[in-house]
Amino acid sequence: MLDTTDTPLKALIRRRKPGYSLEAPFYTSPEIFQADLDIIFGRHWIFVGVDPDIPEPGDAMKFDIGTNSIFVVRDDDNEVRAFHNVCRHRGAPIVHDYKTTVGNLVCRYHSWTYGLDGKLLFAEHMGADFDPSCHGLKPVHVRSLEGLIFVCLSDDPPADFDVMAAKMAPYLAPHDLKNAKVAFEKDIIEPGNWKLTMENNRECYHCAGNHPELTVPLFAYGFGFAPEELDEHGRKEAEDYAKLVTSSHREWESCGFPSECVEHLDDMITGFRTERLPLAGDGESHTGDTRAACKKLLGKINDPRHGALHFWTQPNSWHHFMSDHAVVFSVLPLDAERSLLRTKWLVHKDAVEGVDYDIENLVAVWDATNDQDSTLVGYCQEGARSQAYEPGPYSPHTEMLVDKFCNWYIGRMAEHLGR
Amino acid sequence: MLDTTDTPLKALIRRRKPGYSLEAPFYTSPEIFQADLDIIFGRHWIFVGVDPDIPEPGDAMKFDIGTNSIFVVRDDDNEVRAFHNVCRHRGAPIVHDYKTTVGNLVCRYHSWTYGLDGKLLFAEHMGADFDPSCHGLKPVHVRSLEGLIFVCLSDDPPADFDVMAAKMAPYLAPHDLKNAKVAFEKDIIEPGNWKLTMENNRECYHCAGNHPELTVPLFAYGFGFAPEELDEHGRKEAEDYAKLVTSSHREWESCGFPSECVEHLDDMITGFRTERLPLAGDGESHTGDTRAACKKLLGKINDPRHGALHFWTQPNSWHHFMSDHAVVFSVLPLDAERSLLRTKWLVHKDAVEGVDYDIENLVAVWDATNDQDSTLVGYCQEGARSQAYEPGPYSPHTEMLVDKFCNWYIGRMAEHLGR
Amino acid sequence: MLDTTDTPLKALIRRRKPGYSLEAPFYTSPEIFQADLDIIFGRHWIFVGVDPDIPEPGDAMKFDIGTNSIFVVRDDDNEVRAFHNVCRHRGAPIVHDYKTTVGNLVCRYHSWTYGLDGKLLFAEHMGADFDPSCHGLKPVHVRSLEGLIFVCLSDDPPADFDVMAAKMAPYLAPHDLKNAKVAFEKDIIEPGNWKLTMENNRECYHCAGNHPELTVPLFAYGFGFAPEELDEHGRKEAEDYAKLVTSSHREWESCGFPSECVEHLDDMITGFRTERLPLAGDGESHTGDTRAACKKLLGKINDPRHGALHFWTQPNSWHHFMSDHAVVFSVLPLDAERSLLRTKWLVHKDAVEGVDYDIENLVAVWDATNDQDSTLVGYCQEGARSQAYEPGPYSPHTEMLVDKFCNWYIGRMAEHLGR
Ligand code: FES
Ligand code: FES
Ligand code: FES
Ligand SMILES: [Fe+3]
Ligand SMILES: [Fe+3]
Ligand SMILES: [Fe+3]
Repeated sequence: MLDTTDTPLKALIRRRKPGYSLEAPFYTSPEIFQADLDIIFGRHWIFVGVDPDIPEPGDAMKFDIGTNSIFVVRDDDNEVRAFHNVCRHRGAPIVHDYKTTVGNLVCRYHSWTYGLDGKLLFAEHMGADFDPSCHGLKPVHVRSLEGLIFVCLSDDPPADFDVMAAKMAPYLAPHDLKNAKVAFEKDIIEPGNWKLTMENNRECYHCAGNHPELTVPLFAYGFGFAPEELDEHGRKEAEDYAKLVTSSHREWESCGFPSECVEHLDDMITGFRTERLPLAGDGESHTGDTRAACKKLLGKINDPRHGALHFWTQPNSWHHFMSDHAVVFSVLPLDAERSLLRTKWLVHKDAVEGVDYDIENLVAVWDATNDQDSTLVGYCQEGARSQAYEPGPYSPHTEMLVDKFCNWYIGRMAEHLGR
Repeated sequence: MLDTTDTPLKALIRRRKPGYSLEAPFYTSPEIFQADLDIIFGRHWIFVGVDPDIPEPGDAMKFDIGTNSIFVVRDDDNEVRAFHNVCRHRGAPIVHDYKTTVGNLVCRYHSWTYGLDGKLLFAEHMGADFDPSCHGLKPVHVRSLEGLIFVCLSDDPPADFDVMAAKMAPYLAPHDLKNAKVAFEKDIIEPGNWKLTMENNRECYHCAGNHPELTVPLFAYGFGFAPEELDEHGRKEAEDYAKLVTSSHREWESCGFPSECVEHLDDMITGFRTERLPLAGDGESHTGDTRAACKKLLGKINDPRHGALHFWTQPNSWHHFMSDHAVVFSVLPLDAERSLLRTKWLVHKDAVEGVDYDIENLVAVWDATNDQDSTLVGYCQEGARSQAYEPGPYSPHTEMLVDKFCNWYIGRMAEHLGR
Repeated sequence: MLDTTDTPLKALIRRRKPGYSLEAPFYTSPEIFQADLDIIFGRHWIFVGVDPDIPEPGDAMKFDIGTNSIFVVRDDDNEVRAFHNVCRHRGAPIVHDYKTTVGNLVCRYHSWTYGLDGKLLFAEHMGADFDPSCHGLKPVHVRSLEGLIFVCLSDDPPADFDVMAAKMAPYLAPHDLKNAKVAFEKDIIEPGNWKLTMENNRECYHCAGNHPELTVPLFAYGFGFAPEELDEHGRKEAEDYAKLVTSSHREWESCGFPSECVEHLDDMITGFRTERLPLAGDGESHTGDTRAACKKLLGKINDPRHGALHFWTQPNSWHHFMSDHAVVFSVLPLDAERSLLRTKWLVHKDAVEGVDYDIENLVAVWDATNDQDSTLVGYCQEGARSQAYEPGPYSPHTEMLVDKFCNWYIGRMAEHLGR
């Protein structure tokens, strides 16, 4: 617990009404944004990239979590390490490019030189009393879950990452992300608080009206619906969809692809959810024609019709794994009213662009969908600025996961601030 | 009263010296800007546009007061209604364009649909317990004074709007604004606090040195002057001007155009001032050649020489009504150091562009004058940032209305904050 | 003393560890930036320009110190005066251009007119009770030290300016700055706190790795070094350099050019340091070929090999005086994370561009060096934003002057805030 005195933030947390969106300051207040950085992004496992971002020893990638610059680097023993990107002399950054390859890590200001393990190897003119062993780069906790890289800025990272890892490894393993490559990646800055980006991701109530591309491969009945609003035809379609899910799960599980839903969105510190779901049309991938975008399939998969494995994590990521490609999304907060959405499309490392896959076709659905979602996120940010905004009710049929995201968020804040 | 404790703002209010400009924090402090939004723009009648902005049922116009997005819409019964532009589900805006025409009001996020009266007509998937009647758009108080639209964000708007309306209606009626059209409109962002924009508007001490276009139709002696500084020639001119005002008023009043000065700038909550004044040269209009800019005159006016009816309101508007056209100005605060000035030029709705009027000629004087004033406002904003700035004395002969604006402002703040 | 209560700033000041860089808030906090403006830039002598910026009566130059606009003007008696650039009526600026020439000082808003001595000469319409003698421009303390202009915003400027002036005048006199002209000047905005700009200036540990142009005229051994790291060859070179300094000083002093080091960087309120040092190569100037950039030498100097006289002041300037030209640098804080570096290159006033000197050659070394330093300053600013940043150790052999800058800064803050 940080603090035992009462604060406006604690009062807001205490009075949050389940089933409703959050009060406006959670989306607009710079003070709460700072608390989000400290508590949510400072003490939980944050998804930041993939093993294929740094495939070889000496490969490094830097990124920002709040105002902290961090980099991951593959050491000579092939392990991924993470460090604060801050020279121990006068604080200059060590890694200047998003991605780079280095022998040692040399500061540009006064040439202090560190090894890939962060140890200070060389510092000129520092005098006889200077102890290099006290001046290594500060390490950051890092884990790779079947190729998905998470870091935690806390000295005491949540231990239940292991629970998630144990549960998720069999789901992810067939897609063999470590032997994939990043075919394309794109950053967009969404004009909203990071929580609005997450909430937008956690429902498809808005899909029918806003995502013409995404609704081609997705089944409408997978978005949730109010049973009482269905006519006879609708009821029949909903039943057919439910049967398809059951039969697909049975088939996929029998050939080594775990599929059933696992949900710990608001009952674990490292909250997550997964499920493998069938796709519409030809049923192969998140593409404009529902067919695989890459001829060479991921890992050892040989049938393209394995639906899409969805993996959601709290607080900042979601992932779609198809037979032919995977799309991974990382949300990084910029300020109370802006967030970075970093999206990477991965294919088998041996797939050849122009032969096995075409970038435009590969990225078309999610590139368009991200832009649409960004606009929607901006709408809610605008609304939160108004004195007329008040928390509105979530649909009990289509916005349950949004509610769970908020539950998790409020719970984690309460845990650290005291109730 | 918001608060009974003493604050720096209350101390500043208490020690304001009449006859002098305000202390610097009134122009620069983000906290006082927030108080201005709450008290001045949140509890008084704010001029936002004209009936001809939304002439037909379904026509809507949105605008911002501080961080509140609001829209006015003409309902099917031809009444103007105003609502907070915030969906009751998750807060997205309902109206996205400055001006638009709609059947119903449909939210883009999850398609909640409201009537022009703000009632929630349709919301999918919300479940059996959901009560649409509790989720209508939040209304905003709105009044049209002979075609000038004012809104008030408070639940309890100042009642003396009726006093102003009763007094002003006969002055405004002959110009028949409801049967006019917006021939041109323009927004500029002035680089200063909204009060500096208002203060600049409330004196013409600066006109001789800064407004070459405006000083053509205006009489110099109408700006005020120190009698002791006049030579014999000047005294004669000043007397001639005073006689012209008296004779013009007599003539105009006799044919149904109320003209005499009414001033309640600092003795009413809804402060205002009006007067009809003669114009120089050919005496017809605020144009480069002092002739009417529009052949078709407003309402049933048949003589172009009716001078200019001026109407000033506290806190945020001024208006000039000539025989041929009207110009209306709305000041909307953006932040402590920037303000939106929205200007609309109106002519008879049946006047034909290119035949009856030419836009360039119509807008020339006030477009140039606004730009000059914006520069002057920026000068005072620069000054207010300096530790050397201190309130300076207003001229007792040319800046009386500036002083009354400040008196009104200080009085309204004191009323709401406690003295 | 401003305040006797304890504050986070006072705690930070008290716990500063000598020999180490400052804690992060000194570089990032807007509150500490404000304290820097009040205490450091509001109560010390600030270098702002040179006599040749305003050579003739009526010449004026304006500049900002924090949010204060100030101008210097040469009065008809040839004296330099300084005033707050704020009209005493409603605060508009009086001088609008960086440099200008005026007869009287006329405000653009309502034409109030002041003399070059700041007296209000004319103000229309102000009525019989108005006293012009109470409404003159507010003066600012100003001193010219052999052509270097310093101002102090305090009513009670540090008296030890006279000590610095007495000590420095003989060093500066031979370069006769008052008879020089500004051949070129350039502003750059450095992406860092002003103290990082100063710290960067106070060491050359970073020169070898970052300044390919500057290291041509400078001797590497002049940057400082750890003796224990030298091999035999290095020891010999270091000894040779020490001998060269001694012999040069003897020679220069004998012909009227004081040269020995005077250092009061952290033991005076008006802290400063000076030394005349030999240059490498042909030894004449800070140029790409180490030769004089201007054929006509400064003052009455007739031998170009007089090395470089360095003059550093606390808190915001440094200067290099060669035989042929001088370069003067002024650091002006913009916000916690940005600073203006204003650099002026001066040659003899009778030197003719294209004949005696070529601008590109004149400015090449310091223009490139400033850009390189600006990048380095930005690096440290980035680092200071990270939670991983902590004060790092200064090299006892190459960063002593950085430490003294920090000592001076901390001492001055402590003096005004109380310890
Ligand atoms: S800041 Fe890295 S070596 Fe000096
Ligand atoms: S936010 Fe308007 S319908 Fe959901
Ligand atoms: S502000 Fe300078 S004359 Fe009015
Ligand atoms: Fe979406
Ligand atoms: Fe004006
Ligand atoms: Fe440098």
